[in-house]
Amino acid sequence: MTDSKPTLGVGMVGYAFMGKAHSQAWRTVNSAFDVPFTVDMAAIVGRNEENVKAAANKFGWKSYETDWHRVIDRDDIGLVDVCSPGGNHAEVAIAALQAGKHVLCEKPLANTVDEARAMVEAAEAAAQNGVRAMVGFNYRRVPAATFARQLVAEGKLGTIRHIRAVYLQDWITDPDFPLVWRLQKDQAGSGALGDIGSHIVDLTQFITGQSVTGVSALLETFIKERPLVASTEGLRGTGSEEHGQVTVDDAALFTARLSGGAIATYEATRFATGRKNGLRLEINGEKGSLAFDLERLNELELYLAEEDSRIQGFRRLLITENEHPYVGAWWPAGHIIGWEHTFTHEAYDLLTAIGDNTDPSPTFAEGLQVQLVLDAVERSAANSSGWVTVDK
Amino acid sequence: MTDSKPTLGVGMVGYAFMGKAHSQAWRTVNSAFDVPFTVDMAAIVGRNEENVKAAANKFGWKSYETDWHRVIDRDDIGLVDVCSPGGNHAEVAIAALQAGKHVLCEKPLANTVDEARAMVEAAEAAAQNGVRAMVGFNYRRVPAATFARQLVAEGKLGTIRHIRAVYLQDWITDPDFPLVWRLQKDQAGSGALGDIGSHIVDLTQFITGQSVTGVSALLETFIKERPLVASTEGLRGTGSEEHGQVTVDDAALFTARLSGGAIATYEATRFATGRKNGLRLEINGEKGSLAFDLERLNELELYLAEEDSRIQGFRRLLITENEHPYVGAWWPAGHIIGWEHTFTHEAYDLLTAIGDNTDPSPTFAEGLQVQLVLDAVERSAANSSGWVTVDK
Amino acid sequence: MTDSKPTLGVGMVGYAFMGKAHSQAWRTVNSAFDVPFTVDMAAIVGRNEENVKAAANKFGWKSYETDWHRVIDRDDIGLVDVCSPGGNHAEVAIAALQAGKHVLCEKPLANTVDEARAMVEAAEAAAQNGVRAMVGFNYRRVPAATFARQLVAEGKLGTIRHIRAVYLQDWITDPDFPLVWRLQKDQAGSGALGDIGSHIVDLTQFITGQSVTGVSALLETFIKERPLVASTEGLRGTGSEEHGQVTVDDAALFTARLSGGAIATYEATRFATGRKNGLRLEINGEKGSLAFDLERLNELELYLAEEDSRIQGFRRLLITENEHPYVGAWWPAGHIIGWEHTFTHEAYDLLTAIGDNTDPSPTFAEGLQVQLVLDAVERSAANSSGWVTVDK
Amino acid sequence: MTDSKPTLGVGMVGYAFMGKAHSQAWRTVNSAFDVPFTVDMAAIVGRNEENVKAAANKFGWKSYETDWHRVIDRDDIGLVDVCSPGGNHAEVAIAALQAGKHVLCEKPLANTVDEARAMVEAAEAAAQNGVRAMVGFNYRRVPAATFARQLVAEGKLGTIRHIRAVYLQDWITDPDFPLVWRLQKDQAGSGALGDIGSHIVDLTQFITGQSVTGVSALLETFIKERPLVASTEGLRGTGSEEHGQVTVDDAALFTARLSGGAIATYEATRFATGRKNGLRLEINGEKGSLAFDLERLNELELYLAEEDSRIQGFRRLLITENEHPYVGAWWPAGHIIGWEHTFTHEAYDLLTAIGDNTDPSPTFAEGLQVQLVLDAVERSAANSSGWVTVDK
Repeated sequence: MTDSKPTLGVGMVGYAFMGKAHSQAWRTVNSAFDVPFTVDMAAIVGRNEENVKAAANKFGWKSYETDWHRVIDRDDIGLVDVCSPGGNHAEVAIAALQAGKHVLCEKPLANTVDEARAMVEAAEAAAQNGVRAMVGFNYRRVPAATFARQLVAEGKLGTIRHIRAVYLQDWITDPDFPLVWRLQKDQAGSGALGDIGSHIVDLTQFITGQSVTGVSALLETFIKERPLVASTEGLRGTGSEEHGQVTVDDAALFTARLSGGAIATYEATRFATGRKNGLRLEINGEKGSLAFDLERLNELELYLAEEDSRIQGFRRLLITENEHPYVGAWWPAGHIIGWEHTFTHEAYDLLTAIGDNTDPSPTFAEGLQVQLVLDAVERSAANSSGWVTVDK
Repeated sequence: MTDSKPTLGVGMVGYAFMGKAHSQAWRTVNSAFDVPFTVDMAAIVGRNEENVKAAANKFGWKSYETDWHRVIDRDDIGLVDVCSPGGNHAEVAIAALQAGKHVLCEKPLANTVDEARAMVEAAEAAAQNGVRAMVGFNYRRVPAATFARQLVAEGKLGTIRHIRAVYLQDWITDPDFPLVWRLQKDQAGSGALGDIGSHIVDLTQFITGQSVTGVSALLETFIKERPLVASTEGLRGTGSEEHGQVTVDDAALFTARLSGGAIATYEATRFATGRKNGLRLEINGEKGSLAFDLERLNELELYLAEEDSRIQGFRRLLITENEHPYVGAWWPAGHIIGWEHTFTHEAYDLLTAIGDNTDPSPTFAEGLQVQLVLDAVERSAANSSGWVTVDK
Repeated sequence: MTDSKPTLGVGMVGYAFMGKAHSQAWRTVNSAFDVPFTVDMAAIVGRNEENVKAAANKFGWKSYETDWHRVIDRDDIGLVDVCSPGGNHAEVAIAALQAGKHVLCEKPLANTVDEARAMVEAAEAAAQNGVRAMVGFNYRRVPAATFARQLVAEGKLGTIRHIRAVYLQDWITDPDFPLVWRLQKDQAGSGALGDIGSHIVDLTQFITGQSVTGVSALLETFIKERPLVASTEGLRGTGSEEHGQVTVDDAALFTARLSGGAIATYEATRFATGRKNGLRLEINGEKGSLAFDLERLNELELYLAEEDSRIQGFRRLLITENEHPYVGAWWPAGHIIGWEHTFTHEAYDLLTAIGDNTDPSPTFAEGLQVQLVLDAVERSAANSSGWVTVDK
Repeated sequence: MTDSKPTLGVGMVGYAFMGKAHSQAWRTVNSAFDVPFTVDMAAIVGRNEENVKAAANKFGWKSYETDWHRVIDRDDIGLVDVCSPGGNHAEVAIAALQAGKHVLCEKPLANTVDEARAMVEAAEAAAQNGVRAMVGFNYRRVPAATFARQLVAEGKLGTIRHIRAVYLQDWITDPDFPLVWRLQKDQAGSGALGDIGSHIVDLTQFITGQSVTGVSALLETFIKERPLVASTEGLRGTGSEEHGQVTVDDAALFTARLSGGAIATYEATRFATGRKNGLRLEINGEKGSLAFDLERLNELELYLAEEDSRIQGFRRLLITENEHPYVGAWWPAGHIIGWEHTFTHEAYDLLTAIGDNTDPSPTFAEGLQVQLVLDAVERSAANSSGWVTVDK
């Protein structure tokens, strides 16, 4: 079958967790949404040929490459999707932008503020030529989160007073869990802070339209040493007899002030036994409140301080109505969507922006700003929780 | 300290579970509510002198009697509170009413329809002389239930379409649980049906303002024989080697039609493992819905099909606002009350009605009507779930 | 990219709601699961050329046909997926099976028992030749439901005593909602009963391993007349001035007995204001209980009556662990899936069965058995809720 | 009726919110629990004779006094219950202890650390003579909280890693709410911090057995000026045209470290729109987690990281079993209790300790320690959230 839309070839760097999720998005976006391009899943990139070939096959990519420079060079590729670890983001994204390819870059934008600043520069230069860059804070595309932002923007909550945001996981509570790359600063940048703390910083800023201006923070590493990785097979790999130093935080806690006068508590941890993907937000405004839980991402709790005090209460909204963001593209009311759909929404928004010749959001500048908040957190924690103003 | 209000002496028959709960109500009602009488806890009645004396002491009664006729005779007693088993209700209540004493009678009104009819007659005769009778369906006095009735009466839900009501308990799932009096028809009248099924029939009729007109029912006794009771000590007593026949239902299920066009499912069971006091209702109207759970009796869920479909959802109302029924007498918003408070509310309403010289609700006639529904259920079940019209 | 697996060409009849959902499954199954075939989305069938062509394009089918006989004839098609309305199922499915094509048929299997019986015969004949037939009760493939069945089969709940199952929707509460085909008996067979009641019958039988043996039922049509459909555009179309008769049930309520001694209440309705896709089950066994809600399909509540009574309670299981059915193929623990994934699981199981040369479940015979239960419900309702034994 | 137990006369200072709650406890404790004394509600104290007389009448006190020194002097009074505002606590409590009367003092122990230290001294001196003192952190006596402490002590959670505690209210979100005494530093000591923040500090320390050693804090007053109080009638009184300065915090946020290695976030606010009495705790340990919500105080959520990962989940425990703390004295399983019962439990524990000649807990020293944490919070906030070690 043919379609009259122009084709946009996608080259994706990385084929692990995020690569799998993004593949699902590229494969689905044309069937779910009306977008200005027909996506061509042109190439997937990985260093290990056997593995990347298998991934290409499984996820539906037409070809594979073992060197990321190849997707920069190939003429059939118009968009580079960067799903590799954070240390690699700047190099690939900047090269792609300079080669005139649109870029979708996974969060966090980079491992350091300097790299992130360079990426912003490259993105701004590219935008002059109609080349677009977006950072992949996919939770903005949870329909409930997008809708929460709308409610705040409509003034339904009035002035925002309080934000409390946690991102709770428990996958390394076992002291025998091995020292994987995510627990090493040189590769991961930070621990819970960058991996999941970045999500709640971005998401609360997105919903409230306010930005974090200062923080007081506390970082903790509960388990200081762990077994070295003996093998990476299975879900968690296996550990060896030898141990090494954990060089990132297990948990990050901070209080914050935001630009519009709200005050906040943030917590990101991998030691909240029983919480698997517990991103929870509560936002209290003068006139109403919101509560959200990623483990129930099709729901949003809403309180409106209206006239009849007898019938005020938190409403459990099922965000599956046609009138809600994104979901009209999917199924009838009450038929829930999953975590992966956020990536399809991301692809939809990015393709739409490219077609409209506008900058998609979150821009690299927005990605940098989150990075600057994380940086302030680390500086505060290093200075006994002293108050630190977020850089511009 | 003295108070200028007239004193009303109460004589209570029975000192077990219900006796304890009612004692708490009589002891508390003057401190919580403004009622037209000062309650005098004059006498408690039980056949075993040692036990009733201890109960009098513990629960705060001024005297005790071992023969219920004594409280009928005593001049210092103006109200008789009947908390004895159902088989005894008619005799005591009728004697009290004929002696000009107000009566509060625990539910179910009686073990048979005939007894209940006689009680209604006695109550109607007494009412001519300003003597009042009320049946103790205490769940009407859960503030959330009273408020639910108000919402329906205000038309917030529109025409009622559906009722689904369950009362789920699990205290006899163990086949070794002994054959206590509640499992014997001659003493208890019926099993789950009369004990807890009566509550959901009454409560749904109360909230919707409709009455059950016909039923199709199924009764089941899962465990047909149980150990005879060897001793009544402890929470469940202990069983002997010998077994006897269980002569009541373990569970009762029925569909029903109501006078206003609603259709309903009802279920009462003592075999719902994990449910301790699971009285749950859901009522769907043309314009809104309600949901209630007795294990969270301070809450009511309310759905209103209003204009903006984006923000419709079940609201979790915390029924602790000053504007809600009864609760203004207690604590500030958010401070929950317990199950026992329903009895204090019952006492408050009864005393107010006596003071106002009006009939308190539920009347004995309302108690009889519930009995007639239960009777229809039993006749339907005996006739292979055939449809049975409720008698008048 | 090529793959060494054999290719299986799929021809899908129908392109509306179910067609869209099935397309998503066929497009995804090879990326998510290891199946013995590479799916080729060969052809989609619809009578309106313009529409079916657009659907082919959007959903990713290689070709389209306007006559379903074509997919029976085409050599490149090995499996026919029947997503057309129920009245068409028998004709297409039987033709396909006789032509040696595997068949996936949407539920309910047929609009009449006779048609269903003929389909079972055809399926059994075809199975002799290694041709497979499955009926699409997709909710069996909700991981929580499959896991519930495992728990019952392992004996975790002991003997099952109670089932209470409801399927609550509210899309036609407005009396001005037009008389669409689903409200007409000649096209839809029945109303809430067949559409959603069939799901709860199948699902509870699947989980408990027991089958419904008898029922007492009540059917109700609250709104007897509705505006005729003036236009089908938009979500609900628009109604005309003229009205016509609603010839199906708005709601179906029944009590039932099951083969293993359990008793049950069932309710299916389109008038439960505020409930969008409220399929809820509760199952009580001697030793434990389960509760499930399709609007939170990644969760399962489990109660186990274990030793220490202080710490017994309903557990909210998040069914996203690697050890749970199906979900290991998707995302890490805590990352939820959506309603549509059930179809991918269905495709996975069907392809696996074809590869293993075994009969997939639910077979057409299982689909017929559900039909027989619905038939008993209709007969009971027609006979004033009299008890009706389910035919074999 | 008489009882052979010795009588203990109680004199209560204060008759507002806490006075009403404590009255209910003194009136009830002998009926619910087996305690070594028969409580005699001897005298209630208030400065306004008309009001205190009415309170005495309503709440069931035998006499009233208008000068608190009188209850110190009266021989029929053996226990003084201090329910007056915090600024008055030290004076009354010390005088009572010196006069050999047992003391129950409402929280917070005092408005200043100096006063609290003096009270501890007085209590320790009195204890030498068998005179007992307790501070009224009543939430320790929520059965779920007491049970939570037991679970931690039994090691069910392993080493505690995280505490997150909030106490959310919303009663002053309206800027026109008048400047009541609770919003003035000279009378209330502090705002949300002392009033409700003290509860979560005490409760989390009680449950975990760890004490807060250092904090970094942020205090905020959202509404800096409010109408002066024109009249105190009604629930919130009415405001005048004139405005005055709010001199206490509206909200207090802090991170903390505890003695056993746990890290914590705390938040107390009166600006969480929609939260009425939202005291919520979550505690994560190496082997399990707990969650609690005061608006559902009969429940406790418990997660145990046990062997079979398929069936791990947060359990909703209904804390109404006979085996749970306190509740065996009340009603059968599933029959919930209310907020006020915590005061009856407090009275029970205090009377038992007096009878056993042991120190009741929380002692005044424990009350002081909470005060020292609050003091550290205020010093940190005054110093731009700098880290402050809690004094001893």
